[in-house]
Amino acid sequence: MDAKERIWLGCTVNVSGMAEFYSRQILSTCVRAGNAKERIGQGVAQATQQFLSTNTKTNSIVRLMMLDVCALLKIAKPLIQAPMAGVQDYRLALAVAKAGGLGSIPCAMLSIEQIHAQVNAFKAQSDASYNLNFFCHTATQDAQQELIWREQLAPYFKEFEVGELKASAGRVPFNQEIFDALAPLNPPIFSFHFGLPSADLVAKIKALGAVIISSATSVAEGIWLEENGADIVIAQGVEAGGHRAMFLETDISRQQGTFTLLPQLVQALQVPIVAAGGIADKQAITAAVALGASAVQIGTSYLLCDEATTSALHREVLTSDQAATTCLTNVFSGRPARGIVNRAIRELGPISDKTPPFPTAATAITQLRQAAEQRGSSDFSPLWSGCNNSGCKAISATELTDELFTAFDI
Amino acid sequence: MDAKERIWLGCTVNVSGMAEFYSRQILSTCVRAGNAKERIGQGVAQATQQFLSTNTKTNSIVRLMMLDVCALLKIAKPLIQAPMAGVQDYRLALAVAKAGGLGSIPCAMLSIEQIHAQVNAFKAQSDASYNLNFFCHTATQDAQQELIWREQLAPYFKEFEVGELKASAGRVPFNQEIFDALAPLNPPIFSFHFGLPSADLVAKIKALGAVIISSATSVAEGIWLEENGADIVIAQGVEAGGHRAMFLETDISRQQGTFTLLPQLVQALQVPIVAAGGIADKQAITAAVALGASAVQIGTSYLLCDEATTSALHREVLTSDQAATTCLTNVFSGRPARGIVNRAIRELGPISDKTPPFPTAATAITQLRQAAEQRGSSDFSPLWSGCNNSGCKAISATELTDELFTAFDI
Repeated sequence: MDAKERIWLGCTVNVSGMAEFYSRQILSTCVRAGNAKERIGQGVAQATQQFLSTNTKTNSIVRLMMLDVCALLKIAKPLIQAPMAGVQDYRLALAVAKAGGLGSIPCAMLSIEQIHAQVNAFKAQSDASYNLNFFCHTATQDAQQELIWREQLAPYFKEFEVGELKASAGRVPFNQEIFDALAPLNPPIFSFHFGLPSADLVAKIKALGAVIISSATSVAEGIWLEENGADIVIAQGVEAGGHRAMFLETDISRQQGTFTLLPQLVQALQVPIVAAGGIADKQAITAAVALGASAVQIGTSYLLCDEATTSALHREVLTSDQAATTCLTNVFSGRPARGIVNRAIRELGPISDKTPPFPTAATAITQLRQAAEQRGSSDFSPLWSGCNNSGCKAISATELTDELFTAFDI
Repeated sequence: MDAKERIWLGCTVNVSGMAEFYSRQILSTCVRAGNAKERIGQGVAQATQQFLSTNTKTNSIVRLMMLDVCALLKIAKPLIQAPMAGVQDYRLALAVAKAGGLGSIPCAMLSIEQIHAQVNAFKAQSDASYNLNFFCHTATQDAQQELIWREQLAPYFKEFEVGELKASAGRVPFNQEIFDALAPLNPPIFSFHFGLPSADLVAKIKALGAVIISSATSVAEGIWLEENGADIVIAQGVEAGGHRAMFLETDISRQQGTFTLLPQLVQALQVPIVAAGGIADKQAITAAVALGASAVQIGTSYLLCDEATTSALHREVLTSDQAATTCLTNVFSGRPARGIVNRAIRELGPISDKTPPFPTAATAITQLRQAAEQRGSSDFSPLWSGCNNSGCKAISATELTDELFTAFDI
């Protein structure tokens, strides 16, 4: 089924006057069965025609696009829980899925065995759709730059009595080996950060019937993603917490906010656009929908949830005045990412030209972080957060998702 | 009349069921007469009570806030044309006022005589409200830094055969002399960039009965402005073109986009908040209203309008692919401002630590700009633009304002 057919379906179901949830169930069934048009009678088709000819309001079209994304992702409401490596596992994904949103499992820092364990744990408790998130950076090393960075960190190593460097959890880009290991599990959705895997791997994922999502930080990146196989593109506004998805862009001074990136991607691309960055409440969801979003992706608001694995120190900062000030920094990994300003950012960044390339810059500072955390300090921890952490609540992610969902009832 | 009374008025008029325009006319008259409650009968007051007790939707509250701002500014629709020094005069303000929006006259680069001439020209053709915009920076000089900057520019001076430096139009902060000269004109609205004038001058402006507006780039700046006399605060998202209003903030890496700055200011302040930055069409206005804006301020979209004085070179770039890439730069004035990336930004910036303080950095580069422009090049021109210039149209500003106004009919 192509995009036009999905939109046609969306219209049909919307017009038929059925309750919204029931509509989506039928829609979803139709999508799975692949014979929607046959199932929906001639009368409804006529109503659709009438609807399309008389209703020109943007909101209605966006509403259809939202239904479209729900059908594609097999979820009840168009809300994606942002994958957040380091602060969550399958339990957060499961809690969001229980409410009808799309739960995401960050896999970039996991071994194949760990990914298997995560997926199996999720599937043991839910039949819901889920999203596996991977990085697809090109892993590079720079021994010279590595020395410069360690020299920069030397005074801190002394202060925190850090000895020899130990290897820490790496970030491996998505590859053939990972694909081969996961294919038997038939994951419904793969999302990627920093572009897409090779054309060969994209084709293999599509052959599985899985949906491919990736993030754009500019119109140029969005066009590239659409042309290279993304079924859905996330507009990652500069307000978003964690790593910028930048893969064609290199200059952070040109990165745009959600308010302008989102409508420009909606205008430029054919695939559905998901809004991400600064979305923390119902008002923000309403605004994102007004700007053309087919769905929203929310990360920061989930950081205090019961099912997140956010550290006690990170939680403490998130509920303090310190959380009001975030910025983009490359000092934790070598790539720009948004986090709450702390000592590491103030003294080493926010943007340093001394960091080795991503992800190797993380190795040395992770040792420092561990030593500092053992002393009860978050001065060297990556305190990832978006610009708007007013939506963080120490409740179940199921409950938080339910609350956010009321935005879609307007 | 205090804010609560204005909101009460807004409710009353909204509920009374009168045509919207007529309502505002009455409201405006009531505000001027200062005896609104007496004029509006008991029946309407009862209807208001009923309205307030049954209607809890955010949209309705925002709608009342919008009426409130219209009453305060004495305009028909809550849209402010952003003051843009260098690319417009009273004619743009007049064209926007004709459509019912608030026209702004940028005064920061004008002499007292020139300001008088602008205001008189406006008033000769319209009885509408208007906004006079001033800067209130602290003018400083740094001879040492000035030398460093000229050394930096030396190769370009050679390339463009620029000889001795001549003084160019300066930027004088608002002061007692300007106030004394303008007070007899009884201007209805003063807006400021880079904070507010002294408490003494603020008190004198208020004694005239004029409304005071200023821009915030952070919640801290918004709180400061409210505490120091601003009647209305503009949330200047980082998407906005031209100079950042930063007056407490110094770190551009912490500047927020409209999507998160706006709702946080709405939450933190009591005064009405105007959304600015990235607003280029009806969808964006709808989104801003969803995020709590009482009004919107739009600049970039007016740059191609018939009544703007935007140079031919600037217009040419705005309609080219080059316009898609903007960034914050300090190379044109010494303060961060958003413009379209050109040679000056690429080779000297985007952010240089070699510029003298604002506004003296402008002197040298203005000479270079003039020489380059004479050769038909915009390589050294400040091509101010917000992140979203998709709304630029080469039509009358009255027509453009009318088009944008349809957003408020939803």
